[in-house]
Amino acid sequence: MNRKIKFLLLFILSLLRRMLFLPHMYDPMKENKYDDERFFRQYSQMRRSREGLQAAGEWHELQKLLPDFRGKRVLDLGCGFGWHCRYAVEQGALSVTGIDLSEKMLEVARTRHTSPRITYLRMAVEDFEYAPETFDIVISSLTLHYVEPFQELCRQIHTCLTPGGCFVFSVEHPVFTAYGSQNWYYDTEGNILHWPVDSYFTEGKRTANFLGEQVGKYHKTLTTYLSGLLKNGFVITDLIEPQPDLKLLQEVEGMQDELRRPMMLLVAARKAGDASPCTR
Amino acid sequence: MNRKIKFLLLFILSLLRRMLFLPHMYDPMKENKYDDERFFRQYSQMRRSREGLQAAGEWHELQKLLPDFRGKRVLDLGCGFGWHCRYAVEQGALSVTGIDLSEKMLEVARTRHTSPRITYLRMAVEDFEYAPETFDIVISSLTLHYVEPFQELCRQIHTCLTPGGCFVFSVEHPVFTAYGSQNWYYDTEGNILHWPVDSYFTEGKRTANFLGEQVGKYHKTLTTYLSGLLKNGFVITDLIEPQPDLKLLQEVEGMQDELRRPMMLLVAARKAGDASPCTR
Repeated sequence: MNRKIKFLLLFILSLLRRMLFLPHMYDPMKENKYDDERFFRQYSQMRRSREGLQAAGEWHELQKLLPDFRGKRVLDLGCGFGWHCRYAVEQGALSVTGIDLSEKMLEVARTRHTSPRITYLRMAVEDFEYAPETFDIVISSLTLHYVEPFQELCRQIHTCLTPGGCFVFSVEHPVFTAYGSQNWYYDTEGNILHWPVDSYFTEGKRTANFLGEQVGKYHKTLTTYLSGLLKNGFVITDLIEPQPDLKLLQEVEGMQDELRRPMMLLVAARKAGDASPCTR
Repeated sequence: MNRKIKFLLLFILSLLRRMLFLPHMYDPMKENKYDDERFFRQYSQMRRSREGLQAAGEWHELQKLLPDFRGKRVLDLGCGFGWHCRYAVEQGALSVTGIDLSEKMLEVARTRHTSPRITYLRMAVEDFEYAPETFDIVISSLTLHYVEPFQELCRQIHTCLTPGGCFVFSVEHPVFTAYGSQNWYYDTEGNILHWPVDSYFTEGKRTANFLGEQVGKYHKTLTTYLSGLLKNGFVITDLIEPQPDLKLLQEVEGMQDELRRPMMLLVAARKAGDASPCTR
């Protein structure tokens, strides 16, 4: 057979295989900033990336919302470096599935936070198969503002939870994402004047400067987040707009400004049914 | 008896009577802007004051959160001109208690929205006696941002509701109250640039310009409102940041700007127990 034709056929076969067997594994259309070499290097230098949960300004509050992990099957949407997966296992989780779109982050996760109880999958949050009643706990840390749909995702997460199952997530606060630039408004001398809010009810894509790069995020209103949960059968059990803890406020320069506007929103919700998985 | 001494004794007696018999009726320390002649006149000119619920930008959303009033005992905290009291009666409420600090507003309410089923009381929201299980529904329209405490009030409202009872309220949105001035940030030519947010986590008094007067309001975070409800045994059943309806958007000049930042927060919550009072 002509070598060119053979090569072409093999190529078409490989394409077909990708389309048939791996349709949900990786969607090249989705922005995957964390696999951008430069951005990834920057992100890896952040304190929360190097030192983990204790170095994350919101951890002291998020931790309070997390349920008892003992014997539970956990799904982590946007697991990144795997810090939360590892925490869940340390707290007694039976199994943890961590999914993330970034191969680079998963490489680090697989090296640093490895455990026979953790499975890492490269996949967009929207492409995961949320099989009915397969998880007791779903967590998601600072990921869902990268994802456009919320209603449909809520429905799927609700489906994959067991009765009484728990969904705890953190996102960038609607006040933080509305304007888009994610920067303070300054006077001519460079002093912070205030935080600008605009286009609040115009949901959708914003391009923010994050670590010196342009990063796409999806602004959603508070109503979308909370009524999205309520309309899909969740009971809201807790909500916190975290403030930095006292230690960080005293030690880290500029941290006082974090009291001037909310940056994150932490929400805990429960699927109706036996309440045990969500209580500590 | 010396006339001066007699006068003094009568004065002391009247003071004592006030202290003994009317301790919760009227607290002169509480700001009572709506009894200020000039402010009252301004407020009375607003479309929502003259034309009632249909002219209020948020009514089409608030109405959706209101439960079935038939046969219910209703408490309206900050009833103002009594538009909501009248609506509750029209919808079949058994009895409605409307309380407000402003004598001027109650005078209008007693004239315009009178009904044998409505009782109007002049009193601060904080001073009402929330007797256990005496109301099926508590509503409050744009009042609780004038009141400093929320946790304690939530506890009291929860107490006075029957099991399954419903609490629906609207307040100025934390994004709207944080900065304090309640005004847009303009460029030098007077064009709106954006809405300023500052001091978000510093709760407490702000002095805003409202209808050409300085009015005191109390900023609270979203966390305070929602976790206040959750911590006091309420289940959150709905939450809406209302946008003006299409008609107002098209007809009223400047209404488009209302899409640029949230102004109000509407919340419906339920006391655990038989759900019937809260379902329509």
